[in-house]
Amino acid sequence: MPQVAVMSPDGSVNKIDRDSNEALAALRQLTALMLKAALHDQFPGIRLGDAVADDSQFFVDSDKDDQQVSADELEALEVAIKGLAKNDTKVDFVKMSVEDAVKEVAADPFSKELIEEHAEDGQVAMYQLGNIKAVAVAPVMVYGNVVKNYRLLSVAGAYWKGMSSNPMLQRIYGTSFFKKEDLEADLQARQEAKERDHRVIGNQLDLFFVDPKVGAGLPYWLPKGATIRRVIERYIIDKEVGDDYEHVYTPVLMNLDAYKTSGHWDHYREDMFPPMDMGDGEMLELRPMNCPSHIQVFKHHIRSYRDLPLRIAELGMMHRYEKSGALSGLQRVREMTLNDGHTFVTLDQIQAEFSKILKLIMDVYKDFNINDYTFRLSYRDPKNTEKYFANDEMWEQAQRMLKGAMDDLGLDYYEAEGEAAFYGPKLDIQTKTALGNEETMSTIQLDFMLPEKFDLHYIGEDGQQHRPVMIHRGVVGTMERFMAYLTEIYKGAFPTWLAPQQVNIIPVSEDKHGEYADAVAKALKHLNIRAKVDHRNEKMGYKIRESQTQKTPYTLVVGDDELANQAVSVRKYGEKEQTSMSQADFTAMIQADIATYSREN
Amino acid sequence: MPQVAVMSPDGSVNKIDRDSNEALAALRQLTALMLKAALHDQFPGIRLGDAVADDSQFFVDSDKDDQQVSADELEALEVAIKGLAKNDTKVDFVKMSVEDAVKEVAADPFSKELIEEHAEDGQVAMYQLGNIKAVAVAPVMVYGNVVKNYRLLSVAGAYWKGMSSNPMLQRIYGTSFFKKEDLEADLQARQEAKERDHRVIGNQLDLFFVDPKVGAGLPYWLPKGATIRRVIERYIIDKEVGDDYEHVYTPVLMNLDAYKTSGHWDHYREDMFPPMDMGDGEMLELRPMNCPSHIQVFKHHIRSYRDLPLRIAELGMMHRYEKSGALSGLQRVREMTLNDGHTFVTLDQIQAEFSKILKLIMDVYKDFNINDYTFRLSYRDPKNTEKYFANDEMWEQAQRMLKGAMDDLGLDYYEAEGEAAFYGPKLDIQTKTALGNEETMSTIQLDFMLPEKFDLHYIGEDGQQHRPVMIHRGVVGTMERFMAYLTEIYKGAFPTWLAPQQVNIIPVSEDKHGEYADAVAKALKHLNIRAKVDHRNEKMGYKIRESQTQKTPYTLVVGDDELANQAVSVRKYGEKEQTSMSQADFTAMIQADIATYSREN
Repeated sequence: MPQVAVMSPDGSVNKIDRDSNEALAALRQLTALMLKAALHDQFPGIRLGDAVADDSQFFVDSDKDDQQVSADELEALEVAIKGLAKNDTKVDFVKMSVEDAVKEVAADPFSKELIEEHAEDGQVAMYQLGNIKAVAVAPVMVYGNVVKNYRLLSVAGAYWKGMSSNPMLQRIYGTSFFKKEDLEADLQARQEAKERDHRVIGNQLDLFFVDPKVGAGLPYWLPKGATIRRVIERYIIDKEVGDDYEHVYTPVLMNLDAYKTSGHWDHYREDMFPPMDMGDGEMLELRPMNCPSHIQVFKHHIRSYRDLPLRIAELGMMHRYEKSGALSGLQRVREMTLNDGHTFVTLDQIQAEFSKILKLIMDVYKDFNINDYTFRLSYRDPKNTEKYFANDEMWEQAQRMLKGAMDDLGLDYYEAEGEAAFYGPKLDIQTKTALGNEETMSTIQLDFMLPEKFDLHYIGEDGQQHRPVMIHRGVVGTMERFMAYLTEIYKGAFPTWLAPQQVNIIPVSEDKHGEYADAVAKALKHLNIRAKVDHRNEKMGYKIRESQTQKTPYTLVVGDDELANQAVSVRKYGEKEQTSMSQADFTAMIQADIATYSREN
Repeated sequence: MPQVAVMSPDGSVNKIDRDSNEALAALRQLTALMLKAALHDQFPGIRLGDAVADDSQFFVDSDKDDQQVSADELEALEVAIKGLAKNDTKVDFVKMSVEDAVKEVAADPFSKELIEEHAEDGQVAMYQLGNIKAVAVAPVMVYGNVVKNYRLLSVAGAYWKGMSSNPMLQRIYGTSFFKKEDLEADLQARQEAKERDHRVIGNQLDLFFVDPKVGAGLPYWLPKGATIRRVIERYIIDKEVGDDYEHVYTPVLMNLDAYKTSGHWDHYREDMFPPMDMGDGEMLELRPMNCPSHIQVFKHHIRSYRDLPLRIAELGMMHRYEKSGALSGLQRVREMTLNDGHTFVTLDQIQAEFSKILKLIMDVYKDFNINDYTFRLSYRDPKNTEKYFANDEMWEQAQRMLKGAMDDLGLDYYEAEGEAAFYGPKLDIQTKTALGNEETMSTIQLDFMLPEKFDLHYIGEDGQQHRPVMIHRGVVGTMERFMAYLTEIYKGAFPTWLAPQQVNIIPVSEDKHGEYADAVAKALKHLNIRAKVDHRNEKMGYKIRESQTQKTPYTLVVGDDELANQAVSVRKYGEKEQTSMSQADFTAMIQADIATYSREN
């Protein structure tokens, strides 16, 4: 394997495997160093902050007196880097006194702060490249000629040291590879990510918007996005009702006392909205989760063992406080609606109920064509059992049951000791987003604690009171995150059953075929198919293209032939050819498409 | 017509028509006076407060040292009244000095306060009956023998003078009539009202509950109530989407600034929840109405005249602060979900849009079998046009259009000048509740003001900006009130399409027919019919009775014959006979029942 020379912040040089992550990070560190040098040369007086590299990219922070570096200037900087990346370019190691180092960067408070931060015994280690010296923080490639396949990607504001009380610097992002094909693949992946970004698609397709002026992290679902959400909501409710869940509607507000009882107020307060003083001593709180609400439903009646398992479900709206900087599209919001459910079971029922929930989840995944997922069973730490709620027997039995259920279902999983929550073991189901990030889509969480805190009980066969176990479970998570996930997975081309408009009908001539187009639409709508006619005074080619841009699953063109034969010319999304068929055949085709949740797109 | 003698608080006696409301109120005033006398005789030392009569009932407030008068004691009090209501009983008028009057009631602070309240020139007018004198406040019948048909109805706590800072007295309610048949009819109506009370039925049928301990005025919809609500929600959304509305989901929270812009914060603040300070200067408010949210949707794009009418609809959750004393079941709540809609139109489109909305409303009423309603058109006061928003022409044209639409539809209505809101004319549709109370079910409200306040515009055919008109409209109002209304109208016997459980299947023998019952249920559920099998170990007669108590539309009994013939024995709710039919025939029958929204119950 090819080896490359890497210098460490202590000045030592070693050969390492070129294909290692370490080498890649060192390459990017060198590219960042060259960018610093280029900035220094091109913009005299520029102040330079952190230069950080990881296995996905690198960035350099800078600050100028007049205007900051703009995206237009990235190309010139790339050329300047090329000038530095010559055969004879080499990084030199310099150890010098802090005084001397600071003197050299006198007018640059950020470089000065970096020097002082990394000083040791009055000395600081620096890398020298061309006209600049920069504090040696991370390993860097020694020879400049390896910097060949790089790209400066974008610019964005970033607070110095990430603190909003500090000045805002300009951050230039870039990437760098040893091989040309790796750079090309990476750039393509980035383009793909951009094309799949649910915020971008949400805007293009008019699915939703968020306007911080009327409420940060509070999304507005526009008609098309709302249609998709409604289809998902009805689907999941029907699925759950069919699986013996009892759906309820419970208030989004609750007396703060309930969250004191549950422990959320003590341990989760910073994620909660401020309580509202209603006068009369009542403090109301926007709920951060639905469990205490479902516990009220459980407690409303005396429950017997015959009532268990009792499955309470809801599309429950909740509010969680997130810092405004963390908010993002539908992915990170402050108001969300969770596909939530709580099952109350006896200890003996855990395994069967766990299997039932898991089957439901996998069934739903199938309908949404989610196939790439892994299971993680989280247990308590066997060496620190005293750190967990409830007794040994309960934990042992519960963990055995979860494992037993997974084995019975023949599912692969991995076990993570010490990863359980304080109040019970759980199963996480991890999926991959369209951009390759791992995400917990569903969780089945056992809970021994809340039944205790809220003093829940059921009357057993023995006539005595017993404590139930609660199982929290989500299938598709919040509507917001699930929508973000699906938008990225489908790249906005939602399968027919979810598409906000399923059929777009274009009359060749409005005068001659407009009426027939309406008749076709009416017949489809009568079957609950979301069809519309494009009556606008635009060219047919334009309308067909727009139908594609809007990612409508079926575009129908109707002209003389179609009218004469009571037929339609069908063009599916993403296909070039058009097929003529009878109205009845088309109806049968789209109905089958919808009924099977097929994902042709 | 028979005449009766009535004494006025000034001591004059006149004959009035016995069948008048005035005579009835005077009769009840006399009955209340007798109740005061009876209380005074039976409970020495009792303190006596107000005695008030109206055309529906009367009440007397009292206060005792030990325990208050209880419901058990009402019968004895009725007997005591009988003793007072003799042929020779007569009310005497006494005018006396306040000093003397106060002396007589020395130990009774409430009577004392009443005397002082009604004193004039140091004198007070009193009615004397038997051993008591009471301040003459309202006309009273003179001769005691007319008090024959009366009943003491109930007792309840009530604050002295209605102020929660005052002591709580005991209020005894009663009624009184000249004719025996009127009393009987009234008592029957009261019984009926009690049987129809949605809170009582809601509890019996397990539809919902409210628990002030976890949140006053915040209802929990239990599975059965939630099922009904879900059916209604899906029905109304589908209806609206089919009528060209665009359904959205918008956040329940909004920046307080929007309600300052809208004017709600200035004029409606006392009905709003307390704002939440989110830090960063953001104040969030639980929305008291959805209009500003839908305005955001309108504003999200530049709108052209081609986009109008733009119909934005939502099942929008809102929060309104009501005093805890005013809260009642689902009728008066603090969290509610409104079947809301806002149409943005040009001035010229008002009439057509108004007609379209009205047709939708009447169409929906038909499906819910709401037939008893009246229309009220509210105009501005033509003598005080300056009191209203916007210009004369706008009002004239809008009012003409509303009237024109009503006339074109051939609908009866009455016009109420001066009843319009500040910001536009409206139509109210008044229905009668099961208990005969008038209630506004739907409103179509024109609004010239909000488009101005939020600076809304669309680009007209002339390429210029124009101001749209907003039409606020509700069809079935809030889910909460509509559910209360339906529960009372249907007396809990919801028609099949709404019934939480549509079919209850009872196997004659669990061993022999339980499996067949399950097969029948499965086939029905496959068709989205809400069917369940009663597998409990109970007698068949008990199960059938419970099926009736739960007001299940169809009870199926399956035994040997049914199993042999793949048939079912069908018993409809409220009917005694049972009809045997094939599964297919039953399925066809119930499907027709559901599809036509029939109201067999």
